Amino acid sequence: MSVWEALVELDRTRPRVGDQLVGALREAITRGRLAPGTRLPSTRDLALDLGVSRGLVVGAYEQLAAEGRLVSRRGSGTVVAEVVTALPRQRGEAVERRTAVAPLRPGVPDLGAFPRTAWRRAYETALTSALDADFDYGDATGVPRLRSELSAYLGRVRAALVPPEGLIVTAGVTQGLALLARVLLARGHRRIALEDPGPAALRDHLRRLGMEVVPVPVDEDGVDIGALSRTRTRAVVLTPAHQFPTGVVLAPGRRADVIAWSRRVDGLVIEDDYDAEYRYDREPVACLQGLAPDRVALVGSVSKVLAPGLRLGWLAAPPPWLTDLCAAKHDADNGGPALQQLAFAEFLSGGGYDRHLRRARRLHRERRDAVVAALRRHVPRARIGGIAAGLHLVIELPPGTDDVALAERAAEEGLAPLALSTLRIRKGGTRGLVLGYAAHTPHELTTAVRKLATLL
Amino acid sequence: MSVWEALVELDRTRPRVGDQLVGALREAITRGRLAPGTRLPSTRDLALDLGVSRGLVVGAYEQLAAEGRLVSRRGSGTVVAEVVTALPRQRGEAVERRTAVAPLRPGVPDLGAFPRTAWRRAYETALTSALDADFDYGDATGVPRLRSELSAYLGRVRAALVPPEGLIVTAGVTQGLALLARVLLARGHRRIALEDPGPAALRDHLRRLGMEVVPVPVDEDGVDIGALSRTRTRAVVLTPAHQFPTGVVLAPGRRADVIAWSRRVDGLVIEDDYDAEYRYDREPVACLQGLAPDRVALVGSVSKVLAPGLRLGWLAAPPPWLTDLCAAKHDADNGGPALQQLAFAEFLSGGGYDRHLRRARRLHRERRDAVVAALRRHVPRARIGGIAAGLHLVIELPPGTDDVALAERAAEEGLAPLALSTLRIRKGGTRGLVLGYAAHTPHELTTAVRKLATLL
Repeated sequence: MSVWEALVELDRTRPRVGDQLVGALREAITRGRLAPGTRLPSTRDLALDLGVSRGLVVGAYEQLAAEGRLVSRRGSGTVVAEVVTALPRQRGEAVERRTAVAPLRPGVPDLGAFPRTAWRRAYETALTSALDADFDYGDATGVPRLRSELSAYLGRVRAALVPPEGLIVTAGVTQGLALLARVLLARGHRRIALEDPGPAALRDHLRRLGMEVVPVPVDEDGVDIGALSRTRTRAVVLTPAHQFPTGVVLAPGRRADVIAWSRRVDGLVIEDDYDAEYRYDREPVACLQGLAPDRVALVGSVSKVLAPGLRLGWLAAPPPWLTDLCAAKHDADNGGPALQQLAFAEFLSGGGYDRHLRRARRLHRERRDAVVAALRRHVPRARIGGIAAGLHLVIELPPGTDDVALAERAAEEGLAPLALSTLRIRKGGTRGLVLGYAAHTPHELTTAVRKLATLL
Repeated sequence: MSVWEALVELDRTRPRVGDQLVGALREAITRGRLAPGTRLPSTRDLALDLGVSRGLVVGAYEQLAAEGRLVSRRGSGTVVAEVVTALPRQRGEAVERRTAVAPLRPGVPDLGAFPRTAWRRAYETALTSALDADFDYGDATGVPRLRSELSAYLGRVRAALVPPEGLIVTAGVTQGLALLARVLLARGHRRIALEDPGPAALRDHLRRLGMEVVPVPVDEDGVDIGALSRTRTRAVVLTPAHQFPTGVVLAPGRRADVIAWSRRVDGLVIEDDYDAEYRYDREPVACLQGLAPDRVALVGSVSKVLAPGLRLGWLAAPPPWLTDLCAAKHDADNGGPALQQLAFAEFLSGGGYDRHLRRARRLHRERRDAVVAALRRHVPRARIGGIAAGLHLVIELPPGTDDVALAERAAEEGLAPLALSTLRIRKGGTRGLVLGYAAHTPHELTTAVRKLATLL
């Protein structure tokens, strides 16, 4: 028995002897039994030693050379490569950890309800039917088929008025806003108006991108258009269908007013349609974009319907902004993943998205009802708001309540409500908590509310 | 027969009567036979009329309401919605069209060789084994499992020295460069040095992002480090393994010199490792990053191995730049698609990537040989360069040749070589053509070269 036969144990009675050979050599290299610089026998000699065909040895050497584990030098044969091993190092900052969703955390759908089977089928169909050209560098604004499907979907479900050519497929609302901010800055907008209260992440994101954010108060009819006019900004981000966090709907009169404002100041309205598909006890609220496609940029995503992890969204760009936004998308990443985009087009056209939405809506309504019932029972004095739609509701707390301390105490108990105070740009105003209900069962939610009640 | 029975034709002998009902109602609405505002019968009445269960009608109404085609009003029943139809409009700019790859176009692999079956398996495994938490907002720098696999892959194949925590999964080299440019600008770098000649797209991209590009000449040993020092820039983009377009390798002495330069000026070297996995007749050229992980940012992608359409790449960020680059990625798009990242991790760990690379390398070598043979035969006086690696080669043409006009004439013949002149920042220098050979068969390539020869 040669030394190589001892080093490379092959079982010729089992299939795929070639793979066995690659595996055995790889392991010998990785474990140091074949040290860097070790010269290997010629393919002919090793084949003779091991009693296998020479082609099999040639294949194994090639595979290991492809992996960088062997080096073939002309004239001096094949040697084990000097491979530098990467040593783990600590990252200097906190790495976001993936944990299960804590009860009452707003802004996330039921991740366990992701339609894995239907999505797998859509992806397979996309992969099978893709043209070779679909694997090439494509249109940075998204595969044409998805833009067509999205145009139709947004038309019929959100009453948006956007042709496929006016849509940019994005990696989600974050990217949509980043592209808009880049173009706004390039056109001299330094300030942007935001609803107050509103998502802290939006405020911080726009500030990091270099914009000054200007708060505009929200009342029961939505954002205050008079106050918006007085900001002297020319761009605003709104959530007309379901304001975050209050849950109010922008009143019809104010819709007309905000569009009139945008025309007067030659400005831009950015409509964040973040959870507009979820409405429970009332008519759908059409999006603002359909009323003034030349003035409103609509940003949306599948994050609240399917899953944030897909990183898939859209931006309906008003014609005067379209060319610059397309260029910004091109410069940012030269487009998104084609296969996933084709899979989503398939999922939309086959009705899978509507079916999932219908199921999710029923599920969420049940969950909302459970939270409302538990609140009425355990926190009877709390005023509950924003329950007609969305994935969260708001409870108002008595003046003087420290909602931030309360949210912190809740976090210690494993709950994740948001304090209303942290969502305000201007200090003051009603204290309260934002409670998400989409990601947990009625039973889990009832338990969570009972636990929360003991802290109040 | 009621009017509804006529409008909604159901075939009770076929399965899925519910789907038939939804389809029939949807079509009646879309085609205008049920006009906006039309009141539908109660679910009980329609069920009686059609002889189906009431639950089936309730389901159909819900589906169509989910699609925005029906509106349920409390007290006044269900009516057909006012749906605004999106009208197609012309986009104001040219839309990039998806066409098959033209012969001799550089920079694209054989798209027909995309391993659809193996990729489908990897995606399925990822989808099946994903945790619910994988569908949540995740780490913007990429799923941890992929960063681990990439760290190991880059270590063994490219001799990179980067821990998983030092990697950012990107949407490709374009995004890697966009993130780097943002952080460079934020740190006061206004100027960046580029190899001359080099890709026109890189030069234009960095200019659009707001940087001044400074050319540095390339000779047979790679970029001229003396000239680099004289630019007084503190950042440079290099292609050390296989310079684009000349194909030269950065010589060992110059590797040491460029690292010394980066330490002296407290600067940053950006290594674009764009097709380094393809080497045919010589030892692998390790990447520069492994020699100075604190000074070199390595950008790479799967575009030249698997497909550009996946939009999947990486950025090995030097520790002093890591935190800012992670923040930039977070602000740009809050991370990439989790399922595709998990699928790629699976593909890497299962050896599918190495196997594909091995096959592709063999294929490309054959194709390169075909182009070289055809050139020697049909354009015997052309000097051929850069043939040892990559997906393209360069032919030098006699001084005075108008290579731009030549490339244009070739384009009229359906060929897509690049003129060397268009790749220069500073005018002048050798004239020639860059010929890609990865995406076509030897026979197609031979025909293309013969056609090209008639134009020379």
